[in-house]
Amino acid sequence: MAETSTPENRSRRPSPSYSVTYRLEITNVPGMLGKVTSAIGAAGGDIGAIDIVEVRRGVIVRDITVSAADEAHSEEIRRALESMDGVRVVSYSDRVFLAHLGGKIETSPRMPVKTRDDLSLVYTPGVARVAEALARDPDTAFKLTVKGSTVAVVTDGSAVLGLGDLGPIPALPVMEGKALLFKTFAGVNAFPICLGVRDPAKIVEYVEAISPSFGAINLEDISAPRCFEIEEELRRRLEIPVIHDDQHATAVVVLAGLTNALRLVEKELSEARIVVCGVGAAGTATIRLLLSAGAREIIPVDREGILSSARDPWRRWVVERTNPRGVRGGLAEALKGADVFIGLSAPGVLDRSALELMAPDPIVFALANPFPEIRPEEAQPLARVVATGRSDYPNQVNNALCFPGLFKGLLDVRARGVSDGVLLAAARAIADVLRTDELHEEYIVPSIFDRRVVPSVARAVAEQAVAEGLARRRQKPAAG
Amino acid sequence: MAETSTPENRSRRPSPSYSVTYRLEITNVPGMLGKVTSAIGAAGGDIGAIDIVEVRRGVIVRDITVSAADEAHSEEIRRALESMDGVRVVSYSDRVFLAHLGGKIETSPRMPVKTRDDLSLVYTPGVARVAEALARDPDTAFKLTVKGSTVAVVTDGSAVLGLGDLGPIPALPVMEGKALLFKTFAGVNAFPICLGVRDPAKIVEYVEAISPSFGAINLEDISAPRCFEIEEELRRRLEIPVIHDDQHATAVVVLAGLTNALRLVEKELSEARIVVCGVGAAGTATIRLLLSAGAREIIPVDREGILSSARDPWRRWVVERTNPRGVRGGLAEALKGADVFIGLSAPGVLDRSALELMAPDPIVFALANPFPEIRPEEAQPLARVVATGRSDYPNQVNNALCFPGLFKGLLDVRARGVSDGVLLAAARAIADVLRTDELHEEYIVPSIFDRRVVPSVARAVAEQAVAEGLARRRQKPAAG
Repeated sequence: MAETSTPENRSRRPSPSYSVTYRLEITNVPGMLGKVTSAIGAAGGDIGAIDIVEVRRGVIVRDITVSAADEAHSEEIRRALESMDGVRVVSYSDRVFLAHLGGKIETSPRMPVKTRDDLSLVYTPGVARVAEALARDPDTAFKLTVKGSTVAVVTDGSAVLGLGDLGPIPALPVMEGKALLFKTFAGVNAFPICLGVRDPAKIVEYVEAISPSFGAINLEDISAPRCFEIEEELRRRLEIPVIHDDQHATAVVVLAGLTNALRLVEKELSEARIVVCGVGAAGTATIRLLLSAGAREIIPVDREGILSSARDPWRRWVVERTNPRGVRGGLAEALKGADVFIGLSAPGVLDRSALELMAPDPIVFALANPFPEIRPEEAQPLARVVATGRSDYPNQVNNALCFPGLFKGLLDVRARGVSDGVLLAAARAIADVLRTDELHEEYIVPSIFDRRVVPSVARAVAEQAVAEGLARRRQKPAAG
Repeated sequence: MAETSTPENRSRRPSPSYSVTYRLEITNVPGMLGKVTSAIGAAGGDIGAIDIVEVRRGVIVRDITVSAADEAHSEEIRRALESMDGVRVVSYSDRVFLAHLGGKIETSPRMPVKTRDDLSLVYTPGVARVAEALARDPDTAFKLTVKGSTVAVVTDGSAVLGLGDLGPIPALPVMEGKALLFKTFAGVNAFPICLGVRDPAKIVEYVEAISPSFGAINLEDISAPRCFEIEEELRRRLEIPVIHDDQHATAVVVLAGLTNALRLVEKELSEARIVVCGVGAAGTATIRLLLSAGAREIIPVDREGILSSARDPWRRWVVERTNPRGVRGGLAEALKGADVFIGLSAPGVLDRSALELMAPDPIVFALANPFPEIRPEEAQPLARVVATGRSDYPNQVNNALCFPGLFKGLLDVRARGVSDGVLLAAARAIADVLRTDELHEEYIVPSIFDRRVVPSVARAVAEQAVAEGLARRRQKPAAG
C-alpha cells in the first residue's frame, strides 16, 4: 500500500478519514440549525449525520458529524463553531480513533464451552488425542487446527503505508486492518505479527520459527530491497505460501486492470509498449508479472531515468529482461510512442507534455497514493483510460481486489507455495469478473465490494495450484 | 497442565473425551433399541444422546453417542454392534475430532466494513493517522490496537500435556484450546504461537521479537528447567507480564485450595508441615508461592527422596529455603507428622501406609493427572481433605481457575509485569469466592464454571498491580 502525503500537496478535499463528531449545545430558537450548518459549510466541512441527543429547557443538544480535509481543518471548524453566539461545543470525537478503540479484530471461540463435557472434548483430556494424531501426521493440522485457515500478517514496520520506517508498534493498526479485511472479504483468519527487528536474516529466522501455527504468510510493509531477499529465502524454507502483498497483490491488480484496458483499446499485451515508472517492491513485481503474462516491451524508469544499471540482483534481473530497443534518457524519452504508463512512484512526476508523446489511445495508471503521478483531471482529456489508487476516482487499482481471494484459494487447497502461474490466474479472474458488456473506460476493474471477486479469484487460484502440483488437497476443506 | 497416561494405568472408566457417535440402521421391530442399548452397556459403553435420523420401510436410522474408555474400547463397541443381527453400522464419528474440525478459534472483525467510508476509517487513509499517533506515543497501542487485550500463548511443544516432547505442531490444538478458554471465561483475546525451536536463548529472542502485538505472554508446556530460564530472561527484557502458566497458575490454585483446606481443619499455614512431592515446574513454583504466603516448613521430595542437593540454580534456591529441620530419607520420612501432602509428580507414588504417618486431619492434594499419586477412594478414609486434578472427583485443582482472571486483571491495568504479590492476591481471591458457610471437605475450591471466579480474581490482581506500581493505568479500558 503505497501512500505519500506531505503538507504541501495535501488537498483540502474533506474525507471520512478526518471526520469528527461535534456535540453541540444550541440555543433552541428557530433558524439556529441552519446557521450552524452554514458555518460548517463556510469553513469547508462536509456534513454527514445530524442527531438529536437531548432537548432541555431552551437548548437542544445535537451530534453533528463532519468530514474535514485534515486535523488542522477539523480544528478550524471547531473554532468556527465555538465563535458562534448561542452555540457551545460540549465535546468532539474523532471517528477514526473511536473506530480503533480496543482494536479492530478479536479472537473468538468457534464452539461453546459450557459444561465439563465440552471442556473434555476441546481441552484436556480430549485434546491429547488430537495432539497425538498430529504427532503421527503433522499435515492433519490443516484439518484439525486454525493452521488450515489462518494467515500471519507479518511486518517489521520499515515501510508503513507511505509513512516510512515507523517500527513495529505503529504498524500494528495497519496489520490489524489487513486482518479485518481478510475475514470480512474472504472469511480467512489472519493475525498481525509485528517484529521488532530489522536484519533480513533475522526476520526470515523469526517467521520460520512462528510458521507452525499458520497456513500462509502475508509479508506487509517491508522496505525494498530487503522485502525481496526475505520473501525469496522464506519461500525456499517453508512448505506454505509466502507472499509479499505490496509486490504481488499490486502486480496482480495492475495486470487485471491492464488486461481490460487493452481489451477496450483493442491492443495486445505482447505488442504493447509499456513504461513502468518506479522500480521498488511493487514496480519490480509488476514488471515480472507483465513479462510472465507475455509483455515483450517494458521500459523501467526510476528517479534517475530509464533503468540501465542495477544496484542489486533484483533490479539486475529487471534490466536484463526489459528495454529491448535500448532506449536511453528520462521519462519523456521512454514515453515516446508508448501505449501504457504504469506509475508506482511519486506524486506529480508525469506532466501533460510527456503524456502527449504517447501512442494513440494512451492508458495511464497513476497509482502513487494518495497523490497520483498526474491528477486524473489533467490526464483524462489526453488519455483513453486513467486508473489511480484512489477510491474517489473511477478505476481504483486496489490490492484488496487480490489478497483476500488469493489467500483463500491457496488455503482451500492447502497449498505448499505460490507461483507466477497462480498470480496470473488471479489476475485473469479479476479481469474476467467484468463481462464484456460491462467494460468501459471508467470501469476496467470491479469494485472491492463486488461480491463476485473473491469467489472467482479463490476458485481460479485453487485450480491453478492443483494443476501445478502445489496443492496438498483438491477440494475445499469441509469446515472452511 | 500435567497429565500422565500409560497403557498400564489407563482406567476403563468411559469418558466424553472418547465419545463416538454411531449411525446405525436398525430393523424396525419392537424391542430392537433395547437390544442395541443392552449390547452397548454389556460392552462397557456409556450411552449419551440417541437421535432418530430417518425412518424408512422396515428400518430406522439412529445416531447413538457412546462414551468409551479409550480408542480400543470404542472399536470393541463398534464390533459388538456389527455382530448383531438386524443392525448395520452405517458410519461412526469421533466427537473429539469432530469438535476440532477447522480449528477451535477464529479471528473476527470488531466492526463491519461495508462501504468505502467504513474502509477509510479502519484502513487507508484513516489508519495512517492512528499509525502516526502510535509513532508519537507507543503506549497508545494498549488503547487503539489488539495489544491491550491480547495474550500470546507460546510454546515450543517440549512438554505437551503429559505426552512429552511432541514439537510445535502437535502442541497447536492444546494452545488453541487455551486461547478458547481465555475468551470464553474472561473475554481475553489469545493467539497460539508454536515455535519450531528448542534453544532457550532463541525462544527468548523470538518471543521478544513478536511481543509488540501482545499485552501479555502466557508460556505453556515448556519443559523444566528450560521454562525457568526462559521466563526469567523474558521478564527482564519485556515491559509486559510474562507468566509460565504450568508453574504459576498451578501454584496459585494449590495455594487457594490449601488456604481453604487449612481453614477447615483450623491450622495455620505458618505452622503447617507441608510435603511437596515433585520438584518440576509446578512443584518449584508452588514451593516458592507457599513460602511467599508465609509457609515455614516445606519438605521437597523428588524421585530420589528428600531434596538435599541441586542440579540447577532453581532447585538450589528451593534446597536453601526448605526443610528447616533437616529431615533425611524418602517420602515416608518426610510425611511423618506432616499436615499436608501436595503431589505434583506421578501416579501411585503415595500409599496408604505412608498416609497413616501424617498428623491428624491430613490434607492430601494428589494432583498428578489424570492418574493421581493415590486414588481418592483409598485416600478418603484416612485424609480429612482430598483434592485432585480430575473433574470427576470433588475438589478439582484446575489451572483454569487462575489464568483467565489473572491475565484479565493484568491487561485491565496494562501491567508492565507480574509479581509474587499479584499471584498471592489471585490465590486469595479464588479462596475467598467460597463463603465460610459454603466451605466443606469436598468443596474447598470453586468450580471453573462458577461465574464469581474470573471477576474476583481480575479485580484483586488489578488492584494489587496498581498498589505495587506495576500498572500503566488505574481503570479498566473503556472498550475492554
